[in-house]
Amino acid sequence: MAVLNPKTTTPLSSSSSTFFSHSPFTLRAVIVPVVRGKSAAVQLCKCVATSPEQHTAYTTKVSRNANMAKLQAGYLFPEIARRKGVHLQKYPDAQVISLGIGDTTEPIPEVITSAMAKRANALSTLEGYSGYGAEQGEKKLRAAIASTYYAGLGIEDSDIFVSDGAKCDIARLQMLFGSDITIAVQDPSYPAYVDSSVIMGQTGLFEKNAEKYGKIEYMRCNPENGFFPDLSAIGKTDIIFFCSPNNPTGAAATSEQLTQLVKFAKDNGSIIVYDSAYAMYISDDCPRSIFEIPGAKEVAIETASFSKYAGFTGVRLGWTVVPKELLFSDGFSVAKDFNRIVCTCFNGASNISQAGGLACLSPEGLQAMSEVVGFYKENTNIIVDTFKSLGFNVYGGTNAPYVWVHFPGQSSWDVFSEILEKTHIVTTPGSGFGPGGEGFVRVSAFGHRESVLEACRRFKQLYK
Amino acid sequence: MAVLNPKTTTPLSSSSSTFFSHSPFTLRAVIVPVVRGKSAAVQLCKCVATSPEQHTAYTTKVSRNANMAKLQAGYLFPEIARRKGVHLQKYPDAQVISLGIGDTTEPIPEVITSAMAKRANALSTLEGYSGYGAEQGEKKLRAAIASTYYAGLGIEDSDIFVSDGAKCDIARLQMLFGSDITIAVQDPSYPAYVDSSVIMGQTGLFEKNAEKYGKIEYMRCNPENGFFPDLSAIGKTDIIFFCSPNNPTGAAATSEQLTQLVKFAKDNGSIIVYDSAYAMYISDDCPRSIFEIPGAKEVAIETASFSKYAGFTGVRLGWTVVPKELLFSDGFSVAKDFNRIVCTCFNGASNISQAGGLACLSPEGLQAMSEVVGFYKENTNIIVDTFKSLGFNVYGGTNAPYVWVHFPGQSSWDVFSEILEKTHIVTTPGSGFGPGGEGFVRVSAFGHRESVLEACRRFKQLYK
Repeated sequence: MAVLNPKTTTPLSSSSSTFFSHSPFTLRAVIVPVVRGKSAAVQLCKCVATSPEQHTAYTTKVSRNANMAKLQAGYLFPEIARRKGVHLQKYPDAQVISLGIGDTTEPIPEVITSAMAKRANALSTLEGYSGYGAEQGEKKLRAAIASTYYAGLGIEDSDIFVSDGAKCDIARLQMLFGSDITIAVQDPSYPAYVDSSVIMGQTGLFEKNAEKYGKIEYMRCNPENGFFPDLSAIGKTDIIFFCSPNNPTGAAATSEQLTQLVKFAKDNGSIIVYDSAYAMYISDDCPRSIFEIPGAKEVAIETASFSKYAGFTGVRLGWTVVPKELLFSDGFSVAKDFNRIVCTCFNGASNISQAGGLACLSPEGLQAMSEVVGFYKENTNIIVDTFKSLGFNVYGGTNAPYVWVHFPGQSSWDVFSEILEKTHIVTTPGSGFGPGGEGFVRVSAFGHRESVLEACRRFKQLYK
Repeated sequence: MAVLNPKTTTPLSSSSSTFFSHSPFTLRAVIVPVVRGKSAAVQLCKCVATSPEQHTAYTTKVSRNANMAKLQAGYLFPEIARRKGVHLQKYPDAQVISLGIGDTTEPIPEVITSAMAKRANALSTLEGYSGYGAEQGEKKLRAAIASTYYAGLGIEDSDIFVSDGAKCDIARLQMLFGSDITIAVQDPSYPAYVDSSVIMGQTGLFEKNAEKYGKIEYMRCNPENGFFPDLSAIGKTDIIFFCSPNNPTGAAATSEQLTQLVKFAKDNGSIIVYDSAYAMYISDDCPRSIFEIPGAKEVAIETASFSKYAGFTGVRLGWTVVPKELLFSDGFSVAKDFNRIVCTCFNGASNISQAGGLACLSPEGLQAMSEVVGFYKENTNIIVDTFKSLGFNVYGGTNAPYVWVHFPGQSSWDVFSEILEKTHIVTTPGSGFGPGGEGFVRVSAFGHRESVLEACRRFKQLYK
């Protein structure tokens, strides 16, 4: 998007560049402009003479945020979209199947969309119109979330903050914590935890060799440890991001493992940010919420989302639970500060989306969501069976819509590229989720049935 | 929200408190629990003995973000809502009229809601379903915004970032800029600029006497300077937040004034964040966009919103323009970094809201929006006439839905309280927008016609 190469630009002084901005010529057309001051003319000549790469563009004197400069390449999923675009330019007629980004494909159940349409229509009536809602979400929705997902766990309506999605709330949580904290993440993990931490200045530079940012504690999760980190080897941090069922590995932590995690957090005085966006995909008796673990309310925040349950990836609706029991070291309520962030930096989720959320939690909505989840889980089984039949070691799938396929000794991006080139299927390279993902590829189960079946035929063709 | 008084809490060691979290008793009920270790027992006794105010609640070891602690009281509008709530408890039968928060009251035109309902319904069909949209917004909407509001100004579709509202984008812009920048704000101004700056750590402490945060440049806007700051008295800062038509004063800057502002920014190498959320309320020839000023694309970002045009305060839709021409001091594109923030910390506005935005920009939608705006402007006239007839000096109104009434020598909060107590009308105290607002009260023109007429009758009764 930059017009010029930042490395080769010599900024003009503000006084000289003020002139150019008023010129009716575009910058590229200006060769020998009439300038008012001598020094400006000299500077311009110098600029133009040095290299054709150099432009005379005006730059402000505002320094780029050094934390932004630490970020590596693009955020993972836009980068994959970009590569998909390049592939489509090369093969314009290819029937590309996307099992990459984890984007839902199945229509939203009608019981939910009709509630949203009804709310939208009502907004054009005097009785049905509403303006600003509570920043924390509508009372009825907060109550429905608390009673549906946290019944008997001591979570109250007022602990629930409705949001426009878990990713957005992770950024708001980072604003809440500020720059002076340290974090731990599962390795591999959803990249928003790390990237938002870098943006907030909580980390050191990216260390090329280790493929890690300084000051972040990477908790390796691999087949050897059953995708649960060896906590005895993990240093103390302020915040522990933990996603279960995990994106990308698909592993769900057991009750015993989460009890260990809560004890670990308590021993260290850490706060767990528990991402439960895939909880409804759990088939066995793994906990659906961190708050099923005794004592978790004193050490954990939970983020969640309707995206993968009701196909709300584009509708945007999620929530975050910040229990009253969670306190900073000085005894100040974390929820109180989060409330302030939500009131200052957010204005509530769309009222139409919230009407959809309420419909999701009606008996019919819950039934409809469980059918959507069930459909994707059937896809998962098809993908797991395919890779198993081809002799791969395959993880995840049982409790999550992600299949984590091992390609030992290979580079994830190489595997990604080969699959895309030879089968026109978009996957996600495991290394995009952290160095612990190297040698793996994530295959998402979000897709129409015929696409998943066709993709599996192509995988069989490629790896037979 | 805090269960305990943070000032009087003595945190227990994590080892002792781990025990209590497993206790089946609530904390308040625990008097003499059975403890495993002697030291824990001693600590507990000490806690309980010192004062009945002290609780045994577990605290994490995570330090509260020092920047959050700098914030004063509540964010302005929730604070007003709280006082309104207290008033309603005192006078449960009062017919309270809210001309406070600036919340829209008129139904959304049907041509817009029907487009949203249609999109919502389509989401339950295979053909109409869509998942994640582009984080920057749908192409068609970006193009419609560029051609509707920026035709002939050299703003391209790709310069437009669609958002869930201007307030949310201000927070994202602050994340983009980071902690190491300085800001200037109009005084008075919309509180989100200052509060988000405090949260990001760009400021010093709040200085009680001056009623200002350290390190922020407050640009006084008052009747004496025609509500445009004396720029010769303003120190250089990295960022200049500038809202025109202004919230709360209602003043719109002229072309000459904005030319001065752009020159000032260029001379200093600053970036202007120009908030144009009320541009459609302009009646005279004041610029609707900062980009009408030559050279502004090299020094300015513009945030805007559908909230006050189409009643989208609850629907949530806005946009931010970051021109390609805007560069950091090292020549790096500001838009490129903002794009990274949007991709990492946001996932796009709701697709249903975006369908509404597209309908807003159809010929029928534009006509409908201008009728909504016209209605509120009639309200404004009624309010202006009322206060003028009562002998007040009244500002704003012509180009904005806000009327800025002067109560010389009086405290804004006192006036606010007196009006609420005696007329059951909620206004906004001017000092809530900065020290320069002291002695003023903002009266919002968002209201049903009969409410505004009734409010004006009560004002006449009070001040006759």
